[in-house]
Amino acid sequence: MSLLSIQDRYPEAFSHCFGCGKSNPHGHRLKSWYVNKQVQATFTIPKIYCGGVPGFAYGGIVASLLDCHGTAAAAAFHCADEGTVLDDRPIATRYVTASLSVEFLQPTPLEVELSLVGKLHHSEGRKVFVDLEMGRDGTTFATARMLAIRLKNELDE
Amino acid sequence: MSLLSIQDRYPEAFSHCFGCGKSNPHGHRLKSWYVNKQVQATFTIPKIYCGGVPGFAYGGIVASLLDCHGTAAAAAFHCADEGTVLDDRPIATRYVTASLSVEFLQPTPLEVELSLVGKLHHSEGRKVFVDLEMGRDGTTFATARMLAIRLKNELDE
Repeated sequence: MSLLSIQDRYPEAFSHCFGCGKSNPHGHRLKSWYVNKQVQATFTIPKIYCGGVPGFAYGGIVASLLDCHGTAAAAAFHCADEGTVLDDRPIATRYVTASLSVEFLQPTPLEVELSLVGKLHHSEGRKVFVDLEMGRDGTTFATARMLAIRLKNELDE
Repeated sequence: MSLLSIQDRYPEAFSHCFGCGKSNPHGHRLKSWYVNKQVQATFTIPKIYCGGVPGFAYGGIVASLLDCHGTAAAAAFHCADEGTVLDDRPIATRYVTASLSVEFLQPTPLEVELSLVGKLHHSEGRKVFVDLEMGRDGTTFATARMLAIRLKNELDE
């Protein structure tokens, strides 16, 4: 495992995301790591992000965390191909979400540590398909399939 | 058009959503209205909800707004069937998201008024399929397809 999370290795210009940017003081600061060919994160959803009924998360934060975790996973899988995923150097290659399909299987609890896992489904050129899952103690609350696209070089730092 | 938004007609027990609940002081408080067989809303995304690169929204808030708008639309279409969508009485029938598939077509700008539109695709019993769109001045930034499920009566107030 690298010392720094995937998101903490994004260049400064790309580090402002509300969901996972180290430079956004208001945001969730999700941090994802490449471990054994998967990308993993943990996150505890604060109480204010409840859905209509208090005690469970609103759908938006479930989608948000899966989205940020998925683009980090896409970058990590690219670095793994290049042999650089386990060092702590900046990751200049960035991915954006083209599509995200979320299945909400069960209400997601607040204020307990959740696990996120991203697995590479397959890639085709600049496209990466990632399978995502959010759960706890063997219960899966939501799954997602993401199509992430690698930004072209002119947008890289 | 009703005087109250769809979300402002949710019963108190269901009014705490971070995305659209009138009783969540921290949240976005999205408000959606039924107009001419569609459900419409406007929303201006504050600057803090940027993506990795400042100036554009992070994917999570795009998904969040489409999600809250979609469940409001599902409730509105049900009320339209019952002939109660244009009055201001509480809406006891609530929908939850089973799946949400978002296509991110273009970066979504911050700090400008965006339009959200929800259209009924079709319904089958307690399932409602809603087509969603977020845009501005003829440009579409994101689209989504939602499957919303009507909660059973025992959960209604």
